[in-house]
Amino acid sequence: MQKDRRAAIAQPLLAPRSVAIVGASDDPSKPTGRPQQFLARAGYRGTAYFVNPKRDTVQGEKAWPSLSSLPEVPDHVYIMTGAETAIDVVEECARLGVPVATVLASGFAEDGPAGREREDRLRAAAAGRVRLVGPSSLGVVNPRNGVMLTGNAAFGEPDIPQGGVFVASQSGSVIGSLVSRARGRGIGFAGLVSTGGEADLSLGEICEATLDDPGITSYALFLESLRHSPELASFARAAARAGKPVAVYKLGRSDEAAALAVSHTGALAGADSEADAFLRACGFARVSNFESLLEAPGLLRRLDGGDRPRSPRVGVVTTTGGGAAIMVDQLAVRGLSITAPSAGLVAAMAAAGAVIPHSLIADLGLAGARHDVVTAALATMQDSGEFDLIVFVIGSSARLNPELAVQAIAERGDHRVPIVAFALPEAPDAANLLNSSGVPAFRTPESCADVVASAFARLPATIGEIRVPATGLDVGAEVLDELASAGLLAAQGIEFAPSVALTVSELDGEITLPFSYPVAVKILSEEIPHKSDAGGVVLGVADVDELRAAARTIAGNIERHHPGLVADRVLVQPMAPKGLAEALIGYRVGPEVGPMVVLSTGGVLAELFADSSVRLAPIDLPTARDMIAEVKGLAVLTGYRGLPDGDVEALARALVGISRLAVDAPDVIEAEVNPLSIRAAGAGVTALDALVRRHRASDTNTPEGASALAVATR
Amino acid sequence: MQKDRRAAIAQPLLAPRSVAIVGASDDPSKPTGRPQQFLARAGYRGTAYFVNPKRDTVQGEKAWPSLSSLPEVPDHVYIMTGAETAIDVVEECARLGVPVATVLASGFAEDGPAGREREDRLRAAAAGRVRLVGPSSLGVVNPRNGVMLTGNAAFGEPDIPQGGVFVASQSGSVIGSLVSRARGRGIGFAGLVSTGGEADLSLGEICEATLDDPGITSYALFLESLRHSPELASFARAAARAGKPVAVYKLGRSDEAAALAVSHTGALAGADSEADAFLRACGFARVSNFESLLEAPGLLRRLDGGDRPRSPRVGVVTTTGGGAAIMVDQLAVRGLSITAPSAGLVAAMAAAGAVIPHSLIADLGLAGARHDVVTAALATMQDSGEFDLIVFVIGSSARLNPELAVQAIAERGDHRVPIVAFALPEAPDAANLLNSSGVPAFRTPESCADVVASAFARLPATIGEIRVPATGLDVGAEVLDELASAGLLAAQGIEFAPSVALTVSELDGEITLPFSYPVAVKILSEEIPHKSDAGGVVLGVADVDELRAAARTIAGNIERHHPGLVADRVLVQPMAPKGLAEALIGYRVGPEVGPMVVLSTGGVLAELFADSSVRLAPIDLPTARDMIAEVKGLAVLTGYRGLPDGDVEALARALVGISRLAVDAPDVIEAEVNPLSIRAAGAGVTALDALVRRHRASDTNTPEGASALAVATR
Repeated sequence: MQKDRRAAIAQPLLAPRSVAIVGASDDPSKPTGRPQQFLARAGYRGTAYFVNPKRDTVQGEKAWPSLSSLPEVPDHVYIMTGAETAIDVVEECARLGVPVATVLASGFAEDGPAGREREDRLRAAAAGRVRLVGPSSLGVVNPRNGVMLTGNAAFGEPDIPQGGVFVASQSGSVIGSLVSRARGRGIGFAGLVSTGGEADLSLGEICEATLDDPGITSYALFLESLRHSPELASFARAAARAGKPVAVYKLGRSDEAAALAVSHTGALAGADSEADAFLRACGFARVSNFESLLEAPGLLRRLDGGDRPRSPRVGVVTTTGGGAAIMVDQLAVRGLSITAPSAGLVAAMAAAGAVIPHSLIADLGLAGARHDVVTAALATMQDSGEFDLIVFVIGSSARLNPELAVQAIAERGDHRVPIVAFALPEAPDAANLLNSSGVPAFRTPESCADVVASAFARLPATIGEIRVPATGLDVGAEVLDELASAGLLAAQGIEFAPSVALTVSELDGEITLPFSYPVAVKILSEEIPHKSDAGGVVLGVADVDELRAAARTIAGNIERHHPGLVADRVLVQPMAPKGLAEALIGYRVGPEVGPMVVLSTGGVLAELFADSSVRLAPIDLPTARDMIAEVKGLAVLTGYRGLPDGDVEALARALVGISRLAVDAPDVIEAEVNPLSIRAAGAGVTALDALVRRHRASDTNTPEGASALAVATR
Repeated sequence: MQKDRRAAIAQPLLAPRSVAIVGASDDPSKPTGRPQQFLARAGYRGTAYFVNPKRDTVQGEKAWPSLSSLPEVPDHVYIMTGAETAIDVVEECARLGVPVATVLASGFAEDGPAGREREDRLRAAAAGRVRLVGPSSLGVVNPRNGVMLTGNAAFGEPDIPQGGVFVASQSGSVIGSLVSRARGRGIGFAGLVSTGGEADLSLGEICEATLDDPGITSYALFLESLRHSPELASFARAAARAGKPVAVYKLGRSDEAAALAVSHTGALAGADSEADAFLRACGFARVSNFESLLEAPGLLRRLDGGDRPRSPRVGVVTTTGGGAAIMVDQLAVRGLSITAPSAGLVAAMAAAGAVIPHSLIADLGLAGARHDVVTAALATMQDSGEFDLIVFVIGSSARLNPELAVQAIAERGDHRVPIVAFALPEAPDAANLLNSSGVPAFRTPESCADVVASAFARLPATIGEIRVPATGLDVGAEVLDELASAGLLAAQGIEFAPSVALTVSELDGEITLPFSYPVAVKILSEEIPHKSDAGGVVLGVADVDELRAAARTIAGNIERHHPGLVADRVLVQPMAPKGLAEALIGYRVGPEVGPMVVLSTGGVLAELFADSSVRLAPIDLPTARDMIAEVKGLAVLTGYRGLPDGDVEALARALVGISRLAVDAPDVIEAEVNPLSIRAAGAGVTALDALVRRHRASDTNTPEGASALAVATR
């Protein structure tokens, strides 16, 4: 989005010189009567018009009969009428040249066919001239200038905390709740938008439009589901360029409903894995605890720009050993390990006046809750080069004597090594002082550990333009048989076991294989993707007689499982020596995010434990190595319990290869190698089976011919 | 513990008629000067003496030179001196007949050999006549009667919230922090004890002593580690009889350090699994979030006595759809599923004035935040019989208009179907009203879901007397070879594959097997527990020549792996037809909790995912079935993806059998069947390998001869 296009949205959205409330009520207790009070109380300096054709005045101010009757064209109109009237008002906005309107009414796309038709009329009314927030938007708030276009009672309280966080939420009630939870804790907002139904402006577009606002230093997004992903990706790229970090809380972590896909890749890369891979590629930090959404931006800002090691050296320092133990435990269950101070550091701290025992944590003890001791401890630890982050767990002094430890911590917040703080007791004043001083402070040990984990798990934004499927993925799709699938994947550099396809008639004649027995014999048919289930595989076939017998066995099994199916070909491969491990590598085009690559150990357990790693495709080798490290079951490749190392590099190359289908074969919807046998380091990997599904060139409706994937970016 | 023994501890501990502070300071800002102020401010009605031999007065009151100089023997003495002086004072207490003393000093067992020697002297000084809390105890507090034997600054605030929760904590700083976090939220305390080093009175004994106190309705325990388990088990049994529920937060969830054990069972039942099995058998609810410790007791009390289904039907009702979606997500990631209101219920609610759309949750909408609507909704839902628990997620009205929804919820708290509440905004007054009315209210959606999950996961207390090992388990232990191990386990009713043991010399002669080829050949030696790793297994041996060859191969491998080892026997078994799944069943005597039984799918993945279920042994069939349901990988036995059902009942019987080693073979330290092959329902299970380790009868030091496990209960 160009800078002037951003400003054309952001200025009327967040800094309107004039606003109009359409459907304003005379009753200040009604939601439609509230914006008038909120604007006055918040000291909005622009001009506010209240439109109500049925009255002369509302709450003592002039009521205007319509937008057209106003003495000027307002920058931002909040339409608080019912759905049908709202469409008429939007049409009026478009006619008058109102740049931005926000629509409160519901009853649009979420409301079945009639609602979808209504939403089409709403968009038509806007005519691309007035940009819409909503429908179903609980409003737009800018605490910095008193813009309070909302009827949400949560904004009736004075002094909405100001700060650098811009909140965009698909759920309206979340914005008011975040404000109430931030209050008094030194966390403040540069704007809050309830994005509602996103009929026109999507959450990503709204955020991207605000990126040039110097008062906005970070973003907190509340997502109900992943939608309008191309716009969100565009925001992610722009936010990364602007150096403004983004925290996300997304619902649907529990969505176990696997996509209905022909391969296991579908089950392993379900809706939430897809969203997770997308958010990761966006460079966003996804948090798991609700309050983390408030508490994360502070740490994300501190870590932005610097190196973020994937396995940070986290030091824990405390005046309460018990509290620190809770913190260590919560960090450890999230996969973070604690770095103990070295013997040299313990000595240096003692010399500086901060005496600690040799231990995993730096325990200053109750008596260490002194300004000088804490200052000495933090300065020595920060200068030691032993830590990437220091977590300070404060005891009772946080509540009762914030001038001691808390003050000393607050003063060390601008050092290169960031500090975060957790107070074991309830200590809102300490949180206020710390957050205001740039030391992120947390209310629960869980959200502290959650934010630390997600801040370091955050990757640089790598997301490109998102190619989402233009139509249903299953329209005109064909499954390739194993031989054709292998051919396509071999072209990506994936090594397959040698194989020979034989027809039933060839089996009766003389058979000379280009490899020796024993062999595996498998049914070869695009109609039977799950060969083993259909009795279509015989292993360990020792000679040509057994080979003919195996083919008969298979034919019989197939006849029983798929009566009437003509399956007259088998594939013969040498029995592969057992590798160190087997993996599944897969590729799939997701409905919201486009091509993805999946890695898992394969098998039922991997599915049951969701032991997989998913990324947007294509990927590079370092990313492939990261994925391998993320799959728990593949720990057997890297020295687990004294096992020999596996060929991680060859596995990584195979992953990169299959991921490049996104570039090289845009007609492929799904591809899977399962199993991929992994040998010892240096000895490579071999694909033992393959499955590809792609759009049939002749059936596709898209002008590109072979590709059914339209590029949808704005 | 008998009732009079309980009273002999509880009365001086929590309701002393007189107290003495030894080491009282004249400086009210010092920790040793604080109890004097705290007692006065809290209105302690008994007599308080302050002992300080160096002064005539402390803070304006008479300072006594010694305990012996007091006009009476105090009920409870808080000793705030250094460690060596404390020993002398404890001796004086014993001499005078002081019933209970609490020791602040540290420097005892945690402090190496010198500290352990000091602790021995401390115990000797007490002479079993004065019962000790501590050392390293931050004190004892009873908010109901002003007993404030603590120097913890956190108790300097007035009005410690009173209520029914008794807190016992191995970490001293936790007690003050819990008080500060409970303040103003309608949660209060009947007592708080920092149990410290537990040199005499353990946490379990302290809690058990207080069970007859009618003001104590529930317990909240903070455990750093599991210790003094027999006393904790005794408390658990007594608490269950008294109908007083117990919530536990225990550190060490992340402790992955597997015990050094010869079997995989050790890795699968590490220190935290052991503690978890113990706490579960105690009938305690173990929570994962710190604040859950405060918030759990309310729900535990509501659920106590009634039926607690393992898979509760949780209904969610709300005035904020977005907030409810967060709650649903948090519940679902903890394995709880939401029950939608039936069509009939939706109609009944509408008829009663609570109109909701058909959906997973009952969404009353913003407009539903009215007293009459919420009352109608809750009454109809509670009377419907469709839910075991109702979660109410309250929107902005919780903060701004508690007289609406919150008041209505509070009034429905005494219905048979419990309600818990979570307010999306910050709403302390709502929490106060709700908790005070018996409706548990939560501050974060995470702790709400955590408490709901652990409250329903809580089992009836089944714990018996705990037999912990009297000495190191490895003293005089012997490993049995596979044949002997199988013999011992077969006696427990576990079915083994038929097998024949052959010596090398027998292999040269004629061999007649009582079963047909193909067979498996395995090295048979108690020196080689991990046969495959040593090359000691050959599978699929087709005839007698191959059998002889296999034996030679094995002998060569063993020679290479274990030079000099005489391993001249092999075990021959028929090749088992592949079962539907394989499991590992194990048995182990844990150092803190005694005999345990373990179930997992076996293999590297199960270890990597800690996919196991652990219980104290012995178990009954219903418990065995619960264990099977808990192991994710065994989902393949119960209709996963259309697979045939496995013989879950036979697996359950095998688990019960191995668990009964606890009764039948107390000399066994470890036993393991790995793998146990599970066939289709009704077709049974077969043990394919076994390993037993037990105390060698002749080597043991215990008087029982064969058993090295002393019964340690008090």
